[in-house]
Formats: sequence, structure tokens, C-alpha cells
Amino acid sequence: MGDISREHRRSFPDRIAVIDGKGRQTWPEFDDRTNQVANLLTGLDIGAGDRVLWLAQSSASFLELLIGCAKVGAMVCPANWRQSGDELRFVIEDFSPQLVVWQDEEIGEAVAQARANTSHEATWLQVDGEGEGSLEHAVVAAGAADVEVEVPVDAPLLVIYTAAMIDRPNGSMLTHRNLLAMGMATARITAADHASVFLNSGPLFHVGNFQFEAVPVFLHGGTNIFVRRVDAAEVLQIIEDERATSAFLMPPTIAEIKELNREAKRDISSLRPGPFAPVWGDALPADPTLWGTQPGGFGQTEVSGLAVLNGYGGRGLGNSGRPSPLAQVRVVDADGQECPVGQAGEIVIRGDLVHAGYWNRPELNSRRMREGWWHTTDLGRRETDGTIHFIGTMTRMIKSAAENIYPPEVESCIESHPAVTEAALIGVPDPRFRQSVLAVVALAPGATATEQEIIEHCKSRIASYKKPRRVEFVDALPRTAGAKDYDALDAMFGGGGYPGGDNV
Amino acid sequence: MGDISREHRRSFPDRIAVIDGKGRQTWPEFDDRTNQVANLLTGLDIGAGDRVLWLAQSSASFLELLIGCAKVGAMVCPANWRQSGDELRFVIEDFSPQLVVWQDEEIGEAVAQARANTSHEATWLQVDGEGEGSLEHAVVAAGAADVEVEVPVDAPLLVIYTAAMIDRPNGSMLTHRNLLAMGMATARITAADHASVFLNSGPLFHVGNFQFEAVPVFLHGGTNIFVRRVDAAEVLQIIEDERATSAFLMPPTIAEIKELNREAKRDISSLRPGPFAPVWGDALPADPTLWGTQPGGFGQTEVSGLAVLNGYGGRGLGNSGRPSPLAQVRVVDADGQECPVGQAGEIVIRGDLVHAGYWNRPELNSRRMREGWWHTTDLGRRETDGTIHFIGTMTRMIKSAAENIYPPEVESCIESHPAVTEAALIGVPDPRFRQSVLAVVALAPGATATEQEIIEHCKSRIASYKKPRRVEFVDALPRTAGAKDYDALDAMFGGGGYPGGDNV
Repeated sequence: MGDISREHRRSFPDRIAVIDGKGRQTWPEFDDRTNQVANLLTGLDIGAGDRVLWLAQSSASFLELLIGCAKVGAMVCPANWRQSGDELRFVIEDFSPQLVVWQDEEIGEAVAQARANTSHEATWLQVDGEGEGSLEHAVVAAGAADVEVEVPVDAPLLVIYTAAMIDRPNGSMLTHRNLLAMGMATARITAADHASVFLNSGPLFHVGNFQFEAVPVFLHGGTNIFVRRVDAAEVLQIIEDERATSAFLMPPTIAEIKELNREAKRDISSLRPGPFAPVWGDALPADPTLWGTQPGGFGQTEVSGLAVLNGYGGRGLGNSGRPSPLAQVRVVDADGQECPVGQAGEIVIRGDLVHAGYWNRPELNSRRMREGWWHTTDLGRRETDGTIHFIGTMTRMIKSAAENIYPPEVESCIESHPAVTEAALIGVPDPRFRQSVLAVVALAPGATATEQEIIEHCKSRIASYKKPRRVEFVDALPRTAGAKDYDALDAMFGGGGYPGGDNV
Repeated sequence: MGDISREHRRSFPDRIAVIDGKGRQTWPEFDDRTNQVANLLTGLDIGAGDRVLWLAQSSASFLELLIGCAKVGAMVCPANWRQSGDELRFVIEDFSPQLVVWQDEEIGEAVAQARANTSHEATWLQVDGEGEGSLEHAVVAAGAADVEVEVPVDAPLLVIYTAAMIDRPNGSMLTHRNLLAMGMATARITAADHASVFLNSGPLFHVGNFQFEAVPVFLHGGTNIFVRRVDAAEVLQIIEDERATSAFLMPPTIAEIKELNREAKRDISSLRPGPFAPVWGDALPADPTLWGTQPGGFGQTEVSGLAVLNGYGGRGLGNSGRPSPLAQVRVVDADGQECPVGQAGEIVIRGDLVHAGYWNRPELNSRRMREGWWHTTDLGRRETDGTIHFIGTMTRMIKSAAENIYPPEVESCIESHPAVTEAALIGVPDPRFRQSVLAVVALAPGATATEQEIIEHCKSRIASYKKPRRVEFVDALPRTAGAKDYDALDAMFGGGGYPGGDNV
């Protein structure tokens, strides 16, 4: 990744590499800054395999730090700045960085609390400060000569903590090779090139902002713009001023921008709506790229984001499309044998997109990476046309005797019954079988279906051991943050005894 | 590369992978055949690092053999079938294959002569035969179960012999990684995808046919069609019948096809003209891809073809564009120091596109691969806009005292004189300086220029030691196969004493 910056300073001497509130840099200026960061790191004795933690919001300084780390073989982790002081302390102690770059504005209190409560020793540099102790002071003091360090392409570079599945978050280590593969495979979909102007309005602690499309744009010599955090009015202005071609925006922000622009009437026609064209409506012209016409896919941080994309091979029966040439995908059963077409199993992936494992989790890594395949703990199936259909996560699993039952598969079967609007599966402790399957079902207004009809519906479509033994009817499922609230359902109907623990 | 076929059999179960005169295969059928080839090779004890020689014209069997070799870690070399028996014997003895696949039709005599005159032992299988001793017989007898061999991505796979620069041809070894990088970087330019239908009408012993675009199309699940050799009438019919989207065709064949189609009136509108749109004229619709709008680039077999492409970063001042994100390029002087912008030097390249070296040439490899950079022996410069300008080869070099003088640079300077139409530089033996520089110049009709004017023109533009000491005027330069005939010029004006030898 360091070589990309070195090349662009030569290939694109006049083009803008980065923009943020502090200004803009051409590729030669940006590359000089990354050299300064690399020399600063070397001066702090930070090199191959060492770690830098970013406790701050977004800024061009992060990209400088990423490429500076790339040039000396170190890793950098952008922590989730919305976390509490205690959560930040966990990340500091888990990642054990040699250098912490921190921000005072907005998050200074949580950072101070985390710092006060840990005994971990590191150099701390402030990103929004000046003078002694600030990142800027230290970077400017360092030389701009390029460092000559041979960095293996499989060295970890970018570390992103993923949500706690069992007990605690885990830092997924993405290598130089992963980012190159992510950028090449995604640019084909988004059409990122040297003329792209991407607004990094998504969080740095989310792989999505890197894939769509900071990394593809960086690789191709385009421009990355950073805003400290997403703000509809600021985003609106930047899109017009910089003729941004893409931005990482979620529907609520898009709605806000549209509302604001009804009065502001800014020209934002340079922007491609991407997957949210329906939300943008006629506020933007149509998006001719594959990301606009065939959006979506399947992935996770651990496979560098969406490794399977509808844009590859044409949209088909499955909801997630096909892998790019840089990934291989299989659907396997509990014994690791490939499932026949149409049968659900765990999605496993190998190739250039698979991460180097979680930082400091040797046991978990060997459990998830088996025989060369990364086990996603996500349930899916291969459709007859070769596309992948993602069904749901396997982390909530019901155990009936020796059988593993994954709720999403059975729920999707029940929801295919014409009378049903939604269904949720829980496990109820059972003295003989460990757990028995209970379905909670909401019927469409005016529709009727009996418990026996629901059970028969399942029996004729999926393996018999997966069918519910009991069905409870409700008007609507309880939900939390939009998702089915399984904890509430367990409490309502006596669920428990899960093999992964009851707080999964 | 084996994994690509394994994935496509799952992702594209109904699509056609290959077509040739013998029929067509879906991806599952093709993958089964490559498994049979792999099992055949294993049965012959051919595995990691072993070699297979293809002494035949084009056919789908070659692609089966390539991917069969990929699955067991072996290499395959498609030899130039136009060579004489003696030249083929050289390749057999130099490459020392465990298996030779040969063809009788059209080239049987040269093959038989080569085989009779070598003592090299190998298994020989005939590609256009039947029964015992034929490739088909051996493949069909092998099992179709997938082999389980772990093949490193940096293992050599495809070996292509490049023209003799100094004394003999050298086999450039392209790895799995090289082909993946070639395919990803090129597909962005040609827009190769699962719907592409590429007609392999170029020679298999030329990297161009692989890059444009057998490999990109293979990687993306498209269809590769093979014809035994290029024939305008056959090509014309296939383009219409198979709705081919691209083909490897040179201007003389294009002219022939256009001529034939004046009467035949076949619908060939599926074909994208690519870089030869001017030759196709209005016989084809415009090509919207970057390969149609911004064709050309710089490369050589040893860097997986065109590693620098006008399609990357937009056409600029230089004639060759910029590297894809998978290559880095520098222009260096004889000491390996980077030349300033605008100054000519040797083009050196590193990254995923650089081959694994020449087969069995350790000394030459260490001379060409220095400090991680592949030295192309091609002369170029970086323009002020960051693009690369290719000037010419450095293999014909003049030595004046301690200085190296590369004719293309000086010729291009002389040819920039308004009175000059063309110029050629030769070296004349000189007792004091080893060689002295002589320019042979053709003037435009009616134009005049003196020897002194030509010398002054150079002196004010390039380093003084490069300027000619003598100028001879001719009506036109002697040419051979379109290129300046330096041997004839040496004979005419007493050239000789070249450091690389007088027959370079």
C-alpha cells in the first residue's frame, strides 16, 4: 500500500489525493506527509508488527497514518469513537498499541477516562492539538525522505474491531494484500478511477467506508475527502463544492440531505446514488455503474467486506450474487463437507480477501480458519444458477439432540407460508433433547393458520428435525433497533439452554 | 488459477467456458476435464515445478492443459509452432519437459525432425490423434475427481519464450499471481465479464492473446473460443455464430475480414473493435470501453504484457499511459538512480505483474532483476503529467568511451528537426573512443539541412556525448520487415564494435 502512494506521486503529480477541513494535498504532498509519519514511527521504534491506535473521528490524518504505517510494516486500528471510556480501555489493553493518536473535541472525556484507568504504556499524540504532544508537531519535525523498509504484502495493516459475537470484540487484521484485492474487485463494480472523488462520510471503524470506496479510489489515484463526522448540511455543501462522485451515506442522512436541498438547491448531480437510488429518488441522476444497477452482496469485515457481489456475474436467484475472481466460496455442513445446491450450510471463503485472523486470538483463529477456509458463521446456500443466498447468522443456534438448528433458515421457511407475516424461532430447554424448537408467529390481518398447519408446512420443506414442536401466535414480534428481539421472546416463552450461551 | 475453474463450475453451472472445432463445454464440464488432465499428469508423476510443452496450434485442449497444470503446480509452455525443426529442438532441450503434447497436421514434419534429433526423454501425446498415444485417449482414461494439491500462488504456470535479444530465446515464467493480476488489471480496461465471448485468434505463444483477453475473460467466467490458426473466413463466421465480443486480430486480417464481409454481409456487430477501430472503420460500432477509447500501453512478456496502459489515469503526454495499481514503474540511469522527469533512462518495474524470471537462466535473471526491480532493457521517460513515454529498446547500444548511447533517444531528437523525415544511429569503430556516433538521415523532399545543423540541433537538446560526430544523408533508410535495418546501415557505412556484439 505504501508503493501505491509512491507510484501516484509520480503518475499523478498535480492531482489531489486528500481533502479535509484543514486543506488539500496533491499526491506528492501526501506522499511526503506519509514519509514524515513513517520517519516519526521509526523514531518511536515502531516497525514490523507494531501497533498504532486511532482514538479519533475522521480526518485526512488517518489516511496519512495508514500509509505511514504501511511503509514501516506496522498496523493501525481506527477505534469506534462512540464507545464509552471503559470500552475504549478494553481496546487499548487488547490491542496494546505502541502509539495512541487521540482527539479531545467531543470524545476527550471518554478518552481521558480510558487513559486514566489503564496501566498500558504508550506514546500519546493529540490529533486536534498544537505544539508539544500533538501529532502535527511530531509529524512536521520528522524528515520527508522515503524510508527503505521491505514490507511483505501479507503483513497486517488495517485492524477493525468487529461486534462481540460471544463475549468481546475482536480485531480483524486486514493485510496489504487484502486491501489491494478489495480495491481491485470493488473498483470493477463502482467504476472507481483517477477522476473519482469519494467523501468519507462513513465511520473509519467500519469496513464499508473503506470498501465503498476509500480504498478503490486511493488505489486508482482519485481523491478522498474526510469530514470529522457525518453532518447533512456539511456533506451537502462538500458534494457541490468538490463535485464528489460518491459518499458513504445511510438512508436517514440521505433523507436529511434531500430535505435540506429542497431549499438550498445545491447542484449535487456529480454524485452517484449507488445502492440507495430508491431513497435518493429523482434528487440524483441514475447510476450507470454495477453498484447502482446491481447493488448488494454478502460479506463481513473478516473477508474485507462484501466478497460476494451482485455486480459479479449478473443478479440471480440468490440475494448476494457471486464471488469476484479473488474469492472462492463454499457452503459446508458441520463436518466441513460441501452442501448440495439448494441446501443451507455455513458459508466459508478463501482467497486474497480473507483476513490474517483476529489480533491476539489464536484459539478463535484456529477454530474459524480450518483447512484453508475462513468460516464465516453465516448461513447460506448456493442456488441452482450459482448465486449465493445469505440466510442469516449462525451465532444464535438451537441444539436439539445432536442436531444444530439455525433459526433464520426455519424462519424463512415459515415466512413463506401465505398466512404468515413474520416468524421467530427460539429454543426451549427440554430434559430429553436439550432444547426443543418453538416458533413465534405473526399472521397477516384476517389470515388464519393453525399450529399444525405451520408444522406441516415446515415438515414438507425442510429436514424434519428442524420443524417447530410448538407454535405460539402473536400480533407482532418484539423488536429492538429494527431486529427481532430474541431476548424478549425467550423471556416471554421460556426460551433458554442455548449451546452458545443464553446471552448470545 | 485452478481455484478459478473450481469456483466457476459452482457460480456459472450453465454457462459455456470454452468452444472449439470439437465442441463446447460448460464450466462444470470444463472443470471435470481439467481434473482429468490433472490426474493424468499426476499419473505421469508430473507435479510441482515440472514442465509440459505444447507443440501444437490453438485448441480448447490448451486451456484444459493450462488449468490441469495449474491444479498440480506444473508449468506449460506453448511453443511457437511456426518454428523450424531445429528451433523446436532447441526449445525441447532448453525447457526439458516431462510431457510433450504435439500436433501432426501442418507441423508434423518439423516436430518429427525435432524429436528425431534430440536425446531428451519425455512422454509424447498427440493432440490431433485418436487411440493409444493420443492426448484424448489419455485424458478420457483419467479420473475426474478433483486433485488435492496445495499450489502456491507464486508458482510458475505459463511459460512463453521471448525473442532472442542477445543469443537465444528465453522462457519467461508467468506465475498464477501474474495471471490473476494481468486479468484483474486488464478487465478494468476491456470490461471483460461473465458475458464476454473472446475469440482466441492470436497465437498462444504471444502474451498479447492471453492479456487481450483470454485471461480476463477466463477469470470472470466468460467464454473462450479457439480456432486452430487465424483464417479470415472462419473468424468471420464464428464472430456471427457465437456473438463474439472480442477477438485478437491484426490489421491485415481485419482488412481481409472486411473485404470478405462486403459480400457475406454477416452480422458482426457484437464485436468490439478495441485498439483497431480506425482499421475497422464503419464496419463495427464504436467501442465504449477504455480499450477502445484509450488503447495502447507499454510492456513486455516479462511483466505479463502491457503493465502500463493509456486506459489507466487518462491519456496524457507520454505514449504509454500509467501503471495499473498492481505495478510500480521507475525510469533509472545506469547506476540505478531514478532519472528526473523528462530524462530518458531504463524502464524498471515491480509488483504483481513481474514474472518469476526466465526458465533456467540464473545469471540473466540476476542481471535483469536487481534490488527488487525488473529491468526491461527498454528506454523511456516520465513526462511532466506523470505518464510514461516509451522511446525504444536499449538492446542496441553504442559505446563512446565510458558512455552508453541508446540510438532511439538520439534518433527521436534528430527526427524532431523540421527538415528530417527519419534518422538512424550507428556506431563506427574508433581507436580512441571505442565507437563514434554516426547518424544516417533522410530529409523531407525539398528540405535542406547540413551536417553541422543536425549536430547543433542535438547538442542543444541532449547531452553532448550523445550527438553524432558525423552525418550521412540518404534518400530513405533501408528497412527490413518495416523496421530500420541496422545491419544494412552498418554494412553501408562501416558500423561495428558494438559492446553487445555486432549481430545484436
